[in-house]
Amino acid sequence: MTDQSVVARRREQRRERQAAAAIQSITQPINRLPVYELVDEAALHQIHNASLTILEEIGIDFYDEEALAILAAHGAVVKESTVFLDRKLIERSVRSAPAQFTQLARTPERSVQIGGNHVTFAPVYGPPYVYDLARGRREATLTDFENFVKLTYLSPYLHHSGGTVVEPTDLPTHTRHLDMLYSHLRYSDKPFMGSVTSGPNAQDSVRMAELVFGAETIRQQPALLSLINISSPRRLDDRMLAALKVYAKARQAMIITPFILSGAMAPAAVGGTLAQLNAEALAGISLAQMIEPGTPVVYGAFQTNVDLQSGAPVFGSPESQIALIVSAQLARMHGLPFRSGGMFTSSKIADAQGAYESVQVMLPAILARVNFVLHAAGWLEGGLTAGYEKFVLDCELLGMYHKFLQGLDLSSEGLAMESIRSVPPGGHHLGTDHTLRNFRTAFYRASLFDYNSAEQWQAEGSQDAQQRAHTYYQKLLQEYVPPPLDPAVDRALREFMAQRKSAIQPEF
Amino acid sequence: MTDQSVVARRREQRRERQAAAAIQSITQPINRLPVYELVDEAALHQIHNASLTILEEIGIDFYDEEALAILAAHGAVVKESTVFLDRKLIERSVRSAPAQFTQLARTPERSVQIGGNHVTFAPVYGPPYVYDLARGRREATLTDFENFVKLTYLSPYLHHSGGTVVEPTDLPTHTRHLDMLYSHLRYSDKPFMGSVTSGPNAQDSVRMAELVFGAETIRQQPALLSLINISSPRRLDDRMLAALKVYAKARQAMIITPFILSGAMAPAAVGGTLAQLNAEALAGISLAQMIEPGTPVVYGAFQTNVDLQSGAPVFGSPESQIALIVSAQLARMHGLPFRSGGMFTSSKIADAQGAYESVQVMLPAILARVNFVLHAAGWLEGGLTAGYEKFVLDCELLGMYHKFLQGLDLSSEGLAMESIRSVPPGGHHLGTDHTLRNFRTAFYRASLFDYNSAEQWQAEGSQDAQQRAHTYYQKLLQEYVPPPLDPAVDRALREFMAQRKSAIQPEF
Repeated sequence: MTDQSVVARRREQRRERQAAAAIQSITQPINRLPVYELVDEAALHQIHNASLTILEEIGIDFYDEEALAILAAHGAVVKESTVFLDRKLIERSVRSAPAQFTQLARTPERSVQIGGNHVTFAPVYGPPYVYDLARGRREATLTDFENFVKLTYLSPYLHHSGGTVVEPTDLPTHTRHLDMLYSHLRYSDKPFMGSVTSGPNAQDSVRMAELVFGAETIRQQPALLSLINISSPRRLDDRMLAALKVYAKARQAMIITPFILSGAMAPAAVGGTLAQLNAEALAGISLAQMIEPGTPVVYGAFQTNVDLQSGAPVFGSPESQIALIVSAQLARMHGLPFRSGGMFTSSKIADAQGAYESVQVMLPAILARVNFVLHAAGWLEGGLTAGYEKFVLDCELLGMYHKFLQGLDLSSEGLAMESIRSVPPGGHHLGTDHTLRNFRTAFYRASLFDYNSAEQWQAEGSQDAQQRAHTYYQKLLQEYVPPPLDPAVDRALREFMAQRKSAIQPEF
Repeated sequence: MTDQSVVARRREQRRERQAAAAIQSITQPINRLPVYELVDEAALHQIHNASLTILEEIGIDFYDEEALAILAAHGAVVKESTVFLDRKLIERSVRSAPAQFTQLARTPERSVQIGGNHVTFAPVYGPPYVYDLARGRREATLTDFENFVKLTYLSPYLHHSGGTVVEPTDLPTHTRHLDMLYSHLRYSDKPFMGSVTSGPNAQDSVRMAELVFGAETIRQQPALLSLINISSPRRLDDRMLAALKVYAKARQAMIITPFILSGAMAPAAVGGTLAQLNAEALAGISLAQMIEPGTPVVYGAFQTNVDLQSGAPVFGSPESQIALIVSAQLARMHGLPFRSGGMFTSSKIADAQGAYESVQVMLPAILARVNFVLHAAGWLEGGLTAGYEKFVLDCELLGMYHKFLQGLDLSSEGLAMESIRSVPPGGHHLGTDHTLRNFRTAFYRASLFDYNSAEQWQAEGSQDAQQRAHTYYQKLLQEYVPPPLDPAVDRALREFMAQRKSAIQPEF
């Protein structure tokens, strides 16, 4: 490095530190609201007993020899790839999972608590397409991936950088997990997720986390939280099991999530769906605990239903709302952190349908005391598309939930009797001492929502919410400055990637 | 009438009866969900005690001499127009109001239960403007009024025809209440609301109800439910009091609603807003009970906040969600039916903002066990505009709530263990006996929401939800057939209107 480039680099580093400090300090919300429970304990046990019947009598398939051997060694009955787990084995295994844990972020203040009454919001995960109003729907690229990491970093209402925010389809399949992990580490300092596309890719994720956090550190507290989906009905596939084994052995956290569309992957009934979901989640969680007792796990519930006329998934349905609330109760009964919710919709754009459906999912999740929300911003088209406009609009709702979760203040400032006494009948509170004192914090303000008169709105071009969001996310990306990253760590990550990229053979 | 016109009229009547029978039978939903409560009893009493301080020490203004005399005669302290009500007087007065009542509809099956765990949805109320995608925003006319009455009649998810669904601005102000009442009676057979624009207009409403239902009948069970707003802070104006007196004397039901924007008409704090709202509602309810003990009343809560930067109202805010849930708790504590909620938004069109905000209000209302929801469909622009597209889109959500309110079925059909057993790992439930049996009722289907693939959606013109709604409401209006109305009753209503129109002098 020349002297000049050192000076330039130092200047850049100073700019990065200043920009990071300027970003609104991120405080993960504590849920101070009473939990909403939809069924009583007897009903919960009825569902759980149905799950135990599934686990004991009907069985779950595991497509991995080592997993089958581990399950058998712990006392499960294994017939070919089908595993029968009795209630005592399930109870014993699940008991070793922690009720709450910390996931580390490379900037320590950004580490998140997962479980209890803590809430973590993470962006959309998995879409191969992106949408924006100017360019329409198109295949996602690494630039889109970086953009969503940056937008997530910039939102004070997202506490987690997520994982495959979009599929960077312009990169080779066999090495793109490395580029994705690097993007999370380079363009954000929020916690992130590991790759689950294969055992070696999971291993690469662990290695990169070790380079940043240190191998010993992440065995004490996880630096990765990864998404293990169960292929409902009653099936854990080889890829997911390979990743699960790597993460459990490394004591890295996992969200074990049955992915269920009722009517297709489960019965066309909410009760049966819950019984199956609970059985599947407990089967996956038990295996993780058998491999490494105490590995942090999250009880996941991705549940909605199909439209029985077309077979297409439907989001925000009343049936899925009920399933979500009751699955939270089941997770709580097991003493496990709970993942569900998301700004789900079938809509292809950020229109009324997209918004109605999204709140129909998110608000029940909040009231059911969700701990981790993946897809909390940007989801469109049943998860096939990440929408730029939808992303920033969803974040407005997340801001509202931060305020909502604080509950009701009945201190003397909250009751404001002095202000009530000071205003005559028919008068107004706009200028009272109390209002002036509370001006900035009294009410959440959604900057993307229009509160103007119709005349003013027309004068400004009659823009709908999607159009305003389009302008806004572009401004955010223009103003983005990355958080500082230790150059030695950066170098180590780049070297590791280069080495792995030359070593990994593409699958044909 | 000629023989020919008699035949034609009979044919028309037969067609009306058939169309009415064809309309999906309307069953008011029973809320089978546990109620969501946000604060405990101690907190409720703290708020109520603050309300009692307002009522006893700070006072409420009543701008009507007769009302002041009635209040004084019952033991209130009256100083000029300010009234001080002590806690015993409040308790005694409120106690005489029924916890639940029936509002009659002219087709008896369409009468509604108001209170308990019954839910009634009614359309938007009051907008002077209408919006549709083709013609934009414009002043509402009688045709618009009739259109919204017709659309309400056609929705199986609206149980009530409402009141001033829009202001028919093309009619003279001093007699338009007659045309509005007639429209509700002619184009719908659902229950409706009376006029509150003056004492004589309220009296006309009672007279028209008597012509349809009979004077004795409506003294036993109300045929009118009318909206008495309190002009917060702490003020009941002369028009509202004139209407309140007429309806109380006639034992017609009323919703007594403080209309509060926190930060303007109440403190910039939820606690203080609730204390004031509760005091104001109880003051109005007490007066109604003093005039005629047992008159059915609904405890109303129209509460949201202003944007403190612009003074404009904000809907769906986290602060208003908390106020809504706790005001429901207060109503329940008083043993009164509760009105709140609505598909509220500041948006000028049925875009994402409109939908996000609407669900942010409606879902908490449902979970807080609301009994009557005015503005359950069609609200735009802070209530200044009734939107045609918004109306039919909102109705989709109301359909979802009908299903949601049923709760979780854990019968053997609900648990569907037979279906779970019959499907192998990785298989699907689309063709199981259980799915075939439950095909039609398993999941609510929103016909205006698009569940197609992106390719199919593009092939169909890439329409957003608002565009689909535009086509749909027009189709509904084209297919509309009025419910049958006894020609003698129709004649009596028309004669009454003609007589009143010649008698009423316009106000200058």
